[in-house]
Amino acid sequence: MSSLILHEYSQSGNCYKIRLTAALLGLTLERREYDIMSGATRTPEFLAEVNPNGRIPVLQVGDRFIPESNAACFYLADGSALVPEDRFDRADMLRWMFFEQYNHEPNVATLRFWLAFVGLEGLDEQQRTLLPGKREAGVAALRLMDKHLAGRDFFVGDRLGLADVALYAYTHVAGQGGFDLGRYPAIERWLELVAADPGYIPMAE
Amino acid sequence: MSSLILHEYSQSGNCYKIRLTAALLGLTLERREYDIMSGATRTPEFLAEVNPNGRIPVLQVGDRFIPESNAACFYLADGSALVPEDRFDRADMLRWMFFEQYNHEPNVATLRFWLAFVGLEGLDEQQRTLLPGKREAGVAALRLMDKHLAGRDFFVGDRLGLADVALYAYTHVAGQGGFDLGRYPAIERWLELVAADPGYIPMAE
Repeated sequence: MSSLILHEYSQSGNCYKIRLTAALLGLTLERREYDIMSGATRTPEFLAEVNPNGRIPVLQVGDRFIPESNAACFYLADGSALVPEDRFDRADMLRWMFFEQYNHEPNVATLRFWLAFVGLEGLDEQQRTLLPGKREAGVAALRLMDKHLAGRDFFVGDRLGLADVALYAYTHVAGQGGFDLGRYPAIERWLELVAADPGYIPMAE
Repeated sequence: MSSLILHEYSQSGNCYKIRLTAALLGLTLERREYDIMSGATRTPEFLAEVNPNGRIPVLQVGDRFIPESNAACFYLADGSALVPEDRFDRADMLRWMFFEQYNHEPNVATLRFWLAFVGLEGLDEQQRTLLPGKREAGVAALRLMDKHLAGRDFFVGDRLGLADVALYAYTHVAGQGGFDLGRYPAIERWLELVAADPGYIPMAE
């Protein structure tokens, strides 16, 4: 594999997903930190060279770039035990990764960012208006996950895979967004199982 | 492959993606229509049997179910020419599919739904507040696509693939959401190339 560079903001769960995937696979990533609060991913250089979408994380592979956290995780894990061999299970893994980006991240991760990084007093009018709906949608996503995990250890099949990695990143810090994980016993058990993997690394290093 | 049933609302671009993927692959889908306007995907039966997330499309494969449009497309196309053999290109395809669900669909598709299906007068206060931001984000997504397509025929590699199918579905009807596709000449050329594929089927049948 070509040299791997992660363009990231280390507090971002989307960036952590990629580091966790690499760690589970025993791969080494060079890390480049950007201060997203000061617009470091919106500079003309970043937009021209790294990601025209102005967002991190981006995984650099040699001189090419993969934006979108779950696509970057897939690149690293393609062909490994983190991606199921079975055709249905492979699609089911992606099903949970798309769920993560559509139903989970815009709610669970956004509330964490708003409450723990921006601060309630720093939110603008529109963000305040959106907050209750995002709280409700975040709770719905966590409930759906909890129900799915009742009676099973991992999201797809019977082993840790990319769907777990993708959903773990923001779920394990959902408390920072005001979500009470104590209400979801199956999620709490699953969080412990993920963290017990020998290749596991925590978010803050 | 087991029998394939598409649980859908035929006017949804997310459902059309799956029909278009199947058509390009020469696969036959049985279709079951749900009236999303009257809550047909929120009934206890639908939530228990088809999708706990209460959404269409869902691809039924034998007696198992794949929610999330792009995961369903991946299931159908896995191992076909619509998914690149090259590892980087395969991840790059997913990169555009995640972009579609995160940056494109919540803006371009939502404005189409709000303006062409609900109607401006039917929007609630919060939807009206969100409209300008979604317009701006939709324009940004279309600009990014247009820039990427300038000088190339398809999103990944040099042939039609799943990234094109995923982005085509709501882009070709973006005009219904008030987006002016005439501003994006590379997108217009690409729309014609997709529609010229021998396996192409239109959204309305």
